Amino acid sequence: MSNDLADIGLIGLAVMGQNLILNMNDKGFKVCAFNRTVSKVDHFLANEAKGTNIIGAHSIEELVSKLKRPRRIVLLVKAGQAVDDFIKLLEPHLEKGDIIIDGGNSHFPDTTRRVKECEDKGLLYIGMGVSGGEEGARNGPSLMPGGSAAAWPHVQEIFQKTSAQVNGEPCCEWIGDGGSGHYVKMVHNGIEYGDMQLIAEAYDILKRGLGLSTDEIAEIFARWEQGVLKSFLIEITRDILHFKDTDGEPIVDKILDKAGQKGTGKWTAIDALDRGMPVTLIGEAVFARCLSAIKDERVAASKVIKGPAHEPFQGDKKQFVDDLEQALYASKIISYAQGFILMRQAAIDENWDLNNASIAAVWRSGCIIKSVFLSDITDSYRKNPKLESLLFAPFFQQAIEKAQPAWRRVNAQATLWGVPIPAHGTALSFFDGYRSAVVPANLIQAQRDFFGAHTFRVMPGKENDHMKSGEDIHVKWTATSGDVSSSTYNA
Amino acid sequence: MSNDLADIGLIGLAVMGQNLILNMNDKGFKVCAFNRTVSKVDHFLANEAKGTNIIGAHSIEELVSKLKRPRRIVLLVKAGQAVDDFIKLLEPHLEKGDIIIDGGNSHFPDTTRRVKECEDKGLLYIGMGVSGGEEGARNGPSLMPGGSAAAWPHVQEIFQKTSAQVNGEPCCEWIGDGGSGHYVKMVHNGIEYGDMQLIAEAYDILKRGLGLSTDEIAEIFARWEQGVLKSFLIEITRDILHFKDTDGEPIVDKILDKAGQKGTGKWTAIDALDRGMPVTLIGEAVFARCLSAIKDERVAASKVIKGPAHEPFQGDKKQFVDDLEQALYASKIISYAQGFILMRQAAIDENWDLNNASIAAVWRSGCIIKSVFLSDITDSYRKNPKLESLLFAPFFQQAIEKAQPAWRRVNAQATLWGVPIPAHGTALSFFDGYRSAVVPANLIQAQRDFFGAHTFRVMPGKENDHMKSGEDIHVKWTATSGDVSSSTYNA
Repeated sequence: MSNDLADIGLIGLAVMGQNLILNMNDKGFKVCAFNRTVSKVDHFLANEAKGTNIIGAHSIEELVSKLKRPRRIVLLVKAGQAVDDFIKLLEPHLEKGDIIIDGGNSHFPDTTRRVKECEDKGLLYIGMGVSGGEEGARNGPSLMPGGSAAAWPHVQEIFQKTSAQVNGEPCCEWIGDGGSGHYVKMVHNGIEYGDMQLIAEAYDILKRGLGLSTDEIAEIFARWEQGVLKSFLIEITRDILHFKDTDGEPIVDKILDKAGQKGTGKWTAIDALDRGMPVTLIGEAVFARCLSAIKDERVAASKVIKGPAHEPFQGDKKQFVDDLEQALYASKIISYAQGFILMRQAAIDENWDLNNASIAAVWRSGCIIKSVFLSDITDSYRKNPKLESLLFAPFFQQAIEKAQPAWRRVNAQATLWGVPIPAHGTALSFFDGYRSAVVPANLIQAQRDFFGAHTFRVMPGKENDHMKSGEDIHVKWTATSGDVSSSTYNA
Repeated sequence: MSNDLADIGLIGLAVMGQNLILNMNDKGFKVCAFNRTVSKVDHFLANEAKGTNIIGAHSIEELVSKLKRPRRIVLLVKAGQAVDDFIKLLEPHLEKGDIIIDGGNSHFPDTTRRVKECEDKGLLYIGMGVSGGEEGARNGPSLMPGGSAAAWPHVQEIFQKTSAQVNGEPCCEWIGDGGSGHYVKMVHNGIEYGDMQLIAEAYDILKRGLGLSTDEIAEIFARWEQGVLKSFLIEITRDILHFKDTDGEPIVDKILDKAGQKGTGKWTAIDALDRGMPVTLIGEAVFARCLSAIKDERVAASKVIKGPAHEPFQGDKKQFVDDLEQALYASKIISYAQGFILMRQAAIDENWDLNNASIAAVWRSGCIIKSVFLSDITDSYRKNPKLESLLFAPFFQQAIEKAQPAWRRVNAQATLWGVPIPAHGTALSFFDGYRSAVVPANLIQAQRDFFGAHTFRVMPGKENDHMKSGEDIHVKWTATSGDVSSSTYNA
């Protein structure tokens, strides 16, 4: 009888859940499937799961009774209330040491809370980021588990065998305490938003700037897929651009230009603002989707607002395309540097012991942002785990130094053409600000002190008897400005 | 005895509170001052308030007993718990119809909640945005009251006389229900962040790009102060740049370039993300302050990351400075357009009846962003209250059409120089996106459907038998991609 027990249970038979079950089954694990709408279980067993070792359950009780101990139950249900609901449903049937694993896109503070609530009841809880979409779930996703560390030895083998592999290493490592697994997944998704926006801008520059056809652009992406940009997203962009509708027209030209959002990209941008970290590229990527969404307004505006006269490109098109590859690469480096800077701050704020090399390694395959680029990031952090940021890694310093002239040429040209480059533009501005020992925030501090008595600090090397290091300084800018510095009012 | 009663009470004697009391006193209103640390009351009466009609109270009871009915009590205390604490302290001593006015920088959802809580107890509650810093509070601030509409007739005269005036019109109008007054103040502050960042970038371009001295830059701001940019912030920038330390060196050059934030600018950016509105310029302005704050990291990076070789500017400097004025103007138009787009969405989401012309009119004077520019915005909305956005106003369309070539030249040049322009850059990208009937989000939607089965819609005019208008379309991009579209999982 015991041999008939399943290694793991999974609740939620949408496409991700079905595929993850089939994947675990392929890797030699016996999985028990359950779904709130029970007919889905039977349908799944009779179709996709036919001929496998997968078993099913028609109730929570049955599911729990069919699992080895400690019981391992993956939830792949809609993030939010449904997760809390299932925890509540499961709890009376579980025993001390049983493990609930939330594989959905839960917001990390929820996971932090649930880990504590479950541990208080003697259960173990894992919030696991799962990336790779339906393909990844089926063939090997990138997995980012975090939460109750005591649960890790009981799930490590299953998840590390189920995940994607790179050079014999699994794309699944223990991330850390609390909601850290879902946090890292959130940042992954933010970076994914950034990558997609960067690619979309490059496509737009080739389309509206250089005036190339969709087929010509597909060829360029096919070439880029062989170089430094080699990645899943470049690969599917190539395939998308090649994909024709039944009438022979590229299908991409028939797709409405309103991008969905409101998910984890937005969370990442808000989290960055809350932590005071300049993750500008993801912010712009999310806002670009917002702008895409107000299509009617754009169409109306396009009829009354003139852009620059478009003059055919006079330069070397081949050279420009190579420049664009370098620009995309450089902007991508900035985006990842920003993402890791954000995680650096989160680790401090949340008291997580995040391992940058592990995180990069987990993202190398299985997930949407998988790329050779992430192997280079992994190598950089393995060589120096204490890197302040990616821009201090010799490999990326050299890469960006090489790319820099092309990057500037592309951004300047797009600016003159009138092709919007919110992500490429902010990447370069971040780079120029980051490498500036002095930025013009001295003027902003002067303004804040002028109108709001907000005080400022003295620039190192400029100290004197009335402007001392470490002191909050207020200047009497005008005859009427007071001596009182602001304490309660923040204008 | 009744004649000795005060027209209004004010709690909180930090610089803003003191100045607002003195201002209301000047306008002929009798004010009773109170402060939690009671010694401050005596100090204020014996010094700043000496020889005025201002009276004081040493307890909440005394304060309440010294006010005409309905009692009007302004709180100018630290936003957050202190406001709730004072409401709780006041409540037992107040009567039906008495009015509490929160003049601090409260977050608007708190105000919405407090309006309801107070109204449930028979009290009236106003959340009033107060802008203008200490100077504005003293001489005439911009006031944005919202909340219990029944309270407005009882405070209208006091606040409209106390506020700044423009052509005989007060910079104080009723904003709307709930937390709308604080919301509009929040957006004002976000726009203020944007204006300051735009000015800082212009200063940086003149300093590091053109290589001008602080005195030369001061002269340029003095000239701009006579033109389309005429505003309080340009005026104080001129004065700041002229301001010398005792040794004759411009004091701005001695101020540490780490700008404070985490207040209302951040709230505005987060609110924009939550509402899905592309308020990119404020977002970049907040992030620019974040980047300024990691000074040590910037200094370290400046030593190892090379920028472009700086070649002396070969063009006409005078022309470039004029171009920069136009660029700053155009970016400013975008920032305000974005701010009003955000308020448009908030009015829908929160069911507020916001009057754009009134809001612009209230901002014309008294506040940090006061400018001739806001008179032009007021005029545009008075001419056409139904304007979709400022970019549909003929005045601003002409202005931006005129500015556009200069704007592009400046942004392109800064890009080549390596001077960071996060705010100017995003403004132009927004403009180019906003005037685009088609943006490259079609590719993003294709990618999302490819890896996550997220579906897309068909572009108008491209419908056919298998791609119908209004339907969620999923393409089987590869041999292995399933027929199931994603429902519960958002990658």
